Amino acid sequence: MLFHVRMDVAIPHDLARDRRDELITTEKARALDLQRDGKWVHLWRVAGKYSNISVFDVDSADELHEILWSLPLFPYLTVTVTPLARHPSDLAMQ
Amino acid sequence: MLFHVRMDVAIPHDLARDRRDELITTEKARALDLQRDGKWVHLWRVAGKYSNISVFDVDSADELHEILWSLPLFPYLTVTVTPLARHPSDLAMQ
Amino acid sequence: MLFHVRMDVAIPHDLARDRRDELITTEKARALDLQRDGKWVHLWRVAGKYSNISVFDVDSADELHEILWSLPLFPYLTVTVTPLARHPSDLAMQ
Amino acid sequence: MLFHVRMDVAIPHDLARDRRDELITTEKARALDLQRDGKWVHLWRVAGKYSNISVFDVDSADELHEILWSLPLFPYLTVTVTPLARHPSDLAMQ
Amino acid sequence: MLFHVRMDVAIPHDLARDRRDELITTEKARALDLQRDGKWVHLWRVAGKYSNISVFDVDSADELHEILWSLPLFPYLTVTVTPLARHPSDLAMQ
Amino acid sequence: MLFHVRMDVAIPHDLARDRRDELITTEKARALDLQRDGKWVHLWRVAGKYSNISVFDVDSADELHEILWSLPLFPYLTVTVTPLARHPSDLAMQ
Amino acid sequence: MLFHVRMDVAIPHDLARDRRDELITTEKARALDLQRDGKWVHLWRVAGKYSNISVFDVDSADELHEILWSLPLFPYLTVTVTPLARHPSDLAMQ
Amino acid sequence: MLFHVRMDVAIPHDLARDRRDELITTEKARALDLQRDGKWVHLWRVAGKYSNISVFDVDSADELHEILWSLPLFPYLTVTVTPLARHPSDLAMQ
Amino acid sequence: MLFHVRMDVAIPHDLARDRRDELITTEKARALDLQRDGKWVHLWRVAGKYSNISVFDVDSADELHEILWSLPLFPYLTVTVTPLARHPSDLAMQ
Amino acid sequence: MLFHVRMDVAIPHDLARDRRDELITTEKARALDLQRDGKWVHLWRVAGKYSNISVFDVDSADELHEILWSLPLFPYLTVTVTPLARHPSDLAMQ
Repeated sequence: MLFHVRMDVAIPHDLARDRRDELITTEKARALDLQRDGKWVHLWRVAGKYSNISVFDVDSADELHEILWSLPLFPYLTVTVTPLARHPSDLAMQ
Repeated sequence: MLFHVRMDVAIPHDLARDRRDELITTEKARALDLQRDGKWVHLWRVAGKYSNISVFDVDSADELHEILWSLPLFPYLTVTVTPLARHPSDLAMQ
Repeated sequence: MLFHVRMDVAIPHDLARDRRDELITTEKARALDLQRDGKWVHLWRVAGKYSNISVFDVDSADELHEILWSLPLFPYLTVTVTPLARHPSDLAMQ
Repeated sequence: MLFHVRMDVAIPHDLARDRRDELITTEKARALDLQRDGKWVHLWRVAGKYSNISVFDVDSADELHEILWSLPLFPYLTVTVTPLARHPSDLAMQ
Repeated sequence: MLFHVRMDVAIPHDLARDRRDELITTEKARALDLQRDGKWVHLWRVAGKYSNISVFDVDSADELHEILWSLPLFPYLTVTVTPLARHPSDLAMQ
Repeated sequence: MLFHVRMDVAIPHDLARDRRDELITTEKARALDLQRDGKWVHLWRVAGKYSNISVFDVDSADELHEILWSLPLFPYLTVTVTPLARHPSDLAMQ
Repeated sequence: MLFHVRMDVAIPHDLARDRRDELITTEKARALDLQRDGKWVHLWRVAGKYSNISVFDVDSADELHEILWSLPLFPYLTVTVTPLARHPSDLAMQ
Repeated sequence: MLFHVRMDVAIPHDLARDRRDELITTEKARALDLQRDGKWVHLWRVAGKYSNISVFDVDSADELHEILWSLPLFPYLTVTVTPLARHPSDLAMQ
Repeated sequence: MLFHVRMDVAIPHDLARDRRDELITTEKARALDLQRDGKWVHLWRVAGKYSNISVFDVDSADELHEILWSLPLFPYLTVTVTPLARHPSDLAMQ
Repeated sequence: MLFHVRMDVAIPHDLARDRRDELITTEKARALDLQRDGKWVHLWRVAGKYSNISVFDVDSADELHEILWSLPLFPYLTVTVTPLARHPSDLAMQ
């Protein structure tokens, strides 16, 4: 099942530099793992913003929540979740 | 180049039934053509709403505008366009 | 899987009276069927508004969309969907 | 009487770790007590957010306020309260 | 139990004059009855707007909903309900 | 003349405890004085929030401003002022 | 006493032309009268919009409401009222 | 003096076709005149919307208002005006 | 040329007391100078808020910007600028 | 390809003075370079705000993102990107 997720990142300015770098490194590793697992199926950068638009393919909202909650940057994210359904004009649906 | 586009549809209640059906039929045909041309690369239904979230792969914002402006339902759409860039954590970018 | 859904109803003032009554009657019948099927598990009226807050238990966002799209009043609804997950402090989860 | 309550949690980043853990532990204990007392009748996690959607069954808005005000995390909550009424299409009302 | 209710009125311009006058007359009669019954305890006009701010003293949110739903102008109201509780600094509470 | 005033309180988390308690105590004393003077005629708690809805009876907006500006908690308040007028359906106006 | 009032005008497109012209003519006459009476002390056009920003000098919010309610265009106005007080840095206050 | 102006166009669906075409034609002619006069210095289409972003070079806000008010489509525009000033990092200012 | 300017002041709680007092004193002196120069033609306090509504009479938006940017409190202001034009119903315009 | 970009700057009050000055200096140098390269084609100050409205001429959204991300002040910017297309009434298009 597909969920459209937008993540706007806001890391506090006064966070220690090394802590910040560690968060970003582990976040990237986590994202790559989830993409390899086929869970994180689309990941785009919103041009001009420290934000991404993603699509997750998961079995349930619970699984989606666990994944997002597990992201190192989660405490610094504003997350917007939009459940997706098949569109009747989707070429693959014809 | 990728553009994320959300379209919220609001067809007036008092629009003639046949005109409405004609709009929806020609809109679907147009969408299928654009998908076959590789322009309209993702098309999902927002669950619970007469809305879609799409991704277009075009050469410029001008081309995107011409495509959207050409949609039969365009006069009844609220369109939100978000330009996308490659994400550094995108598996395909590694 | 649980989805929290808010529906704000706005039936046009100038809709024919009998059409309006027919919509409301068929809507109620549909709602009762879906509750009997165990899909529509909570249905509350928002005090002071022509709105409801509901919880649906469905297998996917696709099924949720089909249900909502099938409601006679759908064209006159503003729908807000929020996917729900289990809460770690939920008594039933202990 | 039922109240729909949404709670969005925002614990300051610079709060001492042990204070944070203590808050979360006592919050969970309080939530479990209130559920056992039959006051906190529904508690769901909003997928992707540090938020919950709950339903309280209380005798008055005063009682609701005292309960919410007593939550250890209250100072870090954005709370939205929506009073609920019986819905004419509620199966239990037929 | 007290509910704070704001009502913003928007009667369609093209509503027949006599129907409009009838609505306003019956609305006023209903409001006076509810005030005599002790249900509608405060009714103020928002200066400069076709709106009022009111306080209702009712036994439940269900009763509040029935009252508001029964107002002749209800279909033309945007209603905002805020449940009130006793304030610790209220002189009457000392 | 009546003014409807909503006050949303947000005391910074890192404010010294004793300073916070002093503010709250002096705020309560000030509120009680103003009620005794007949200026602060209604004071209700918004259920679930550190907010109040009040009605002031003053001679002018200047007097209202001086009163609100004099509140110990003023620097931590978001204040919304709505001037009130007599409502034609107010029972007392008949 | 001074009130800052913003009026955004939205006359329905399908209002009969002569009715529209009559409204605008009587509105202007009314505005001129109120300015001559010293009630409407400032009247500016918001550049680029069918809106004005005004300041009224009246004895009470009741008087302000009666004035605004009496404007021929009132049914087509979105009105925002902000009560004003003397500013400590106002040259006239020194 | 430069003003940044955004115009969002919303022509009513039920406006007569020939009236609509006449508006669009005269609007374009007016826009071309104003550009030739050096008043309308930038005119871009917002990709995906029936909107434009423009920059006007005029002597005053009064002149800007007269120009915008004179546009045939003015009654169907939502206009947002932002006054511009020279930027200290503007290459032309060095 | 007239600009309507609203300034909402938010001085950080943790700013040193003497620095805060110095800012407020120099701000007042600056405001009085600008009023004597005929630039700052109206200055009102928004009742109940640490905000003012002002009108400036300047030669250009550049001059307005320099004035506002020069205010000691500028870093702590949220500023909203609305360019004003003459109103056809302004008594002075007849 | 043209992108309209608004940047609202909010540098934290407690940032060290020399760090702040260094940011502003390097930001200006970067902006001048980008203007010389023909990428940053318009740069205006929003009168009364620490904000700018700019237009960038770039080959793709990716290039735009890299440019914005490279700005020294990027961490302190709220950026709004609007893709632009040619307007049919643009004089240069005739």
